[in-house]
Amino acid sequence: MSDAKLTSAGPVDAKLIEDLVAASRILAHHGVLDAWGHVSMRHPSNPQRYLMSRARAPALVSIEDIMEFDLDSNPVDQGDRRCFLERFIHGNAFKARPDVNAVVHSHSPTIVPFSVTEQPLRAVSSVASFLACGCPVFDFHKVSRTKGLLITNNEQGAELAKTLGDKPVALMRGHGNLVVAPDIPRVVHRALYTEINAKQLAVALSFGKPIKYISEDEMLDPQRLGDSWDVWKHEAMNG
Amino acid sequence: MSDAKLTSAGPVDAKLIEDLVAASRILAHHGVLDAWGHVSMRHPSNPQRYLMSRARAPALVSIEDIMEFDLDSNPVDQGDRRCFLERFIHGNAFKARPDVNAVVHSHSPTIVPFSVTEQPLRAVSSVASFLACGCPVFDFHKVSRTKGLLITNNEQGAELAKTLGDKPVALMRGHGNLVVAPDIPRVVHRALYTEINAKQLAVALSFGKPIKYISEDEMLDPQRLGDSWDVWKHEAMNG
Amino acid sequence: MSDAKLTSAGPVDAKLIEDLVAASRILAHHGVLDAWGHVSMRHPSNPQRYLMSRARAPALVSIEDIMEFDLDSNPVDQGDRRCFLERFIHGNAFKARPDVNAVVHSHSPTIVPFSVTEQPLRAVSSVASFLACGCPVFDFHKVSRTKGLLITNNEQGAELAKTLGDKPVALMRGHGNLVVAPDIPRVVHRALYTEINAKQLAVALSFGKPIKYISEDEMLDPQRLGDSWDVWKHEAMNG
Amino acid sequence: MSDAKLTSAGPVDAKLIEDLVAASRILAHHGVLDAWGHVSMRHPSNPQRYLMSRARAPALVSIEDIMEFDLDSNPVDQGDRRCFLERFIHGNAFKARPDVNAVVHSHSPTIVPFSVTEQPLRAVSSVASFLACGCPVFDFHKVSRTKGLLITNNEQGAELAKTLGDKPVALMRGHGNLVVAPDIPRVVHRALYTEINAKQLAVALSFGKPIKYISEDEMLDPQRLGDSWDVWKHEAMNG
Repeated sequence: MSDAKLTSAGPVDAKLIEDLVAASRILAHHGVLDAWGHVSMRHPSNPQRYLMSRARAPALVSIEDIMEFDLDSNPVDQGDRRCFLERFIHGNAFKARPDVNAVVHSHSPTIVPFSVTEQPLRAVSSVASFLACGCPVFDFHKVSRTKGLLITNNEQGAELAKTLGDKPVALMRGHGNLVVAPDIPRVVHRALYTEINAKQLAVALSFGKPIKYISEDEMLDPQRLGDSWDVWKHEAMNG
Repeated sequence: MSDAKLTSAGPVDAKLIEDLVAASRILAHHGVLDAWGHVSMRHPSNPQRYLMSRARAPALVSIEDIMEFDLDSNPVDQGDRRCFLERFIHGNAFKARPDVNAVVHSHSPTIVPFSVTEQPLRAVSSVASFLACGCPVFDFHKVSRTKGLLITNNEQGAELAKTLGDKPVALMRGHGNLVVAPDIPRVVHRALYTEINAKQLAVALSFGKPIKYISEDEMLDPQRLGDSWDVWKHEAMNG
Repeated sequence: MSDAKLTSAGPVDAKLIEDLVAASRILAHHGVLDAWGHVSMRHPSNPQRYLMSRARAPALVSIEDIMEFDLDSNPVDQGDRRCFLERFIHGNAFKARPDVNAVVHSHSPTIVPFSVTEQPLRAVSSVASFLACGCPVFDFHKVSRTKGLLITNNEQGAELAKTLGDKPVALMRGHGNLVVAPDIPRVVHRALYTEINAKQLAVALSFGKPIKYISEDEMLDPQRLGDSWDVWKHEAMNG
Repeated sequence: MSDAKLTSAGPVDAKLIEDLVAASRILAHHGVLDAWGHVSMRHPSNPQRYLMSRARAPALVSIEDIMEFDLDSNPVDQGDRRCFLERFIHGNAFKARPDVNAVVHSHSPTIVPFSVTEQPLRAVSSVASFLACGCPVFDFHKVSRTKGLLITNNEQGAELAKTLGDKPVALMRGHGNLVVAPDIPRVVHRALYTEINAKQLAVALSFGKPIKYISEDEMLDPQRLGDSWDVWKHEAMNG
């Protein structure tokens, strides 16, 4: 942690914070996030800052839990709050990718099988066509481990961001994934349909026949996610 | 969209509209429709018109959302409502199939694996015996794409209807399916059991032994769906 | 239907009727019964009679729906109630098996794959050790079909009972199963764990290695089901 | 049962009892425990005693159901309460493993396939890295059976504890598993992620490619489980 005390980049629109909280609840509701995992967003007023919950289970995150961090993942005003150990995944993704404003790290259950085999995870469904460009897989080849397969410092986080490159999703061997997007609804869409597409691909592979993947020229990023966001939020917050 | 202003084919029995809304909720409740997908019905007074929700997630559709369209999928009275981009799937199915009064388009999860391999989807269960005649698979061979693998105009919709032919279900490669039936309860039954039968067939295929499919002479269309409709509606509307 | 008017075998203890209704709800709650399927019990005062709901979805069955039938499946007092078409499955099981007092017919989802392949369904789990003696598979070899793969008369029902023999479970090709037991909690246990064991066996088979099935001398019929019945009923009746 | 009347090791902190009850409900909520199965903890004041519910379905266990046993699994004050037949699994685990303070016995559904084949259950996910050292499989080789595949006396329980050795998890052929840990949150974590890891490994195996398991030097025992315990308890007790 740096010596100088950090000052906040300023207040954030309540609706944006509410969406950040909803993202956490939505992905927990759909089983993409388990009792761990986290969602973050870049600070709308200062690209050198990001916002993320204090350490707590995603399904229980509320507005009061949101903290501000610099891109080295130092908390601006920690107080007596515990931070997620793995927050360096987020800081380094924001640092390496100026186009990214929202980040998810999850233990998405059906991602793990792809992360521990040479079976590539590719798009079989149009709704997950963002996977058509492929998913790189991160492992601890170039940096030393500190705590099992967790990313707990900036060196490791930077190496993961390097593996991600310009893609929307990177798998983390024996662990889960990193998903990035230009905004919160889009990162939720990507994290959710990476899991769904993984399940569908596993079934397709079981048939033992060639697979016609979605090709890169068939990719289509949804132009608006307002309708899906409405129902995801409704179900996660009310049920 | 045509120049002439369209006039409505007239009011529709509230119970029919309620069933159209229920169909949307039922298929969302059972995971056949995700945050996208839609159900439509032919207008009971004018076969050149159909009824469908404005653009919104199927689980949230309500009576006020139902709009009227002509078979070219022009809205009769759009106002400031957004229409589903893919409504041309519905209009062309009604146009090509006078026997059809209800249409579903879905991302039914276990349909996707069958749509991207040469593994045919056929009936293994008596309740899904409508699949005994086989499911053709649509891909963009004869028409140009506009938005990824979405059907967004009448030319594409007509080609999909041609692929469907006289069958109840067509798969759409890397996307989902099109399901048609003489009425709303029947289209719900077919969309639901296409998914269930796909799951069962995937398990049966995993055994690596020959499969005794339901043959065409063993097909049985349920004579009434009143009892199943009661429970589907009850569960979807009451949570 | 016989000409003579049938007289009732007399009133039945309310608790027994309540358990018959609960059985229907429990198996629907666990997805063993879908919108169709049925549970019946032998009349406690007259072994030539059985009790079963009028035609309605299992999740919605209530005490008032229970009707009395003779073993030819003629209703004692039909009134204006519709009977299940497939009730002949039940009547013939009671007729052929004096040891049986409770019968389930279901579309249990993971049973179908076993019913359409030569893959035998056998016990891999101690809780389902009643399957250790194997499950015969019924098909329409010796009787003519009337309505697809449905059993709709006594000749067909008797043939199914003959296939069942002295076993607790028979599979019905492309359709589902028939489960019998000495009492209602036991038939619920068997119907539920036939489905669970089928799922477990499908996973075990996917490993492609030899399977150590439960042998017949390892079978253990639970001596009491009071505790499991309590929780099954609690969850099904309270949501 | 011994002749001498046992005296209690004394009252236990209400919060610990509440956590023991929550553990039972959590594992039932997640489908790891079915209508059978049990959780126990060592008595905090006397290592020769343990605490476990009277015989009842795990989802219905409440504070009043908790009983005290010696390590031979004799109840201290039985009264008219029935004890779990299989409590000898617990007593012998506590006897053989002074490091263990919490024990689960379950029919965890995806454990069964691994227990009946030679397919080893090993860690593919970092959250389940406690499985990296492997899971021994218990069968009735060295002791005689009394009731099917149930452990119902101390001789059998001791043999199972011997199979477990110094590991956290042992599989029981055709039955389920035994999970041990230093405390209640940890035993819940292990029982839950043994099931999840089994599902993930089954999918990974279906790809037919070599698997990079978590190696022993990559193991990481979570240092605190406060956050996950909060959400597990919240969901099990409220929903």
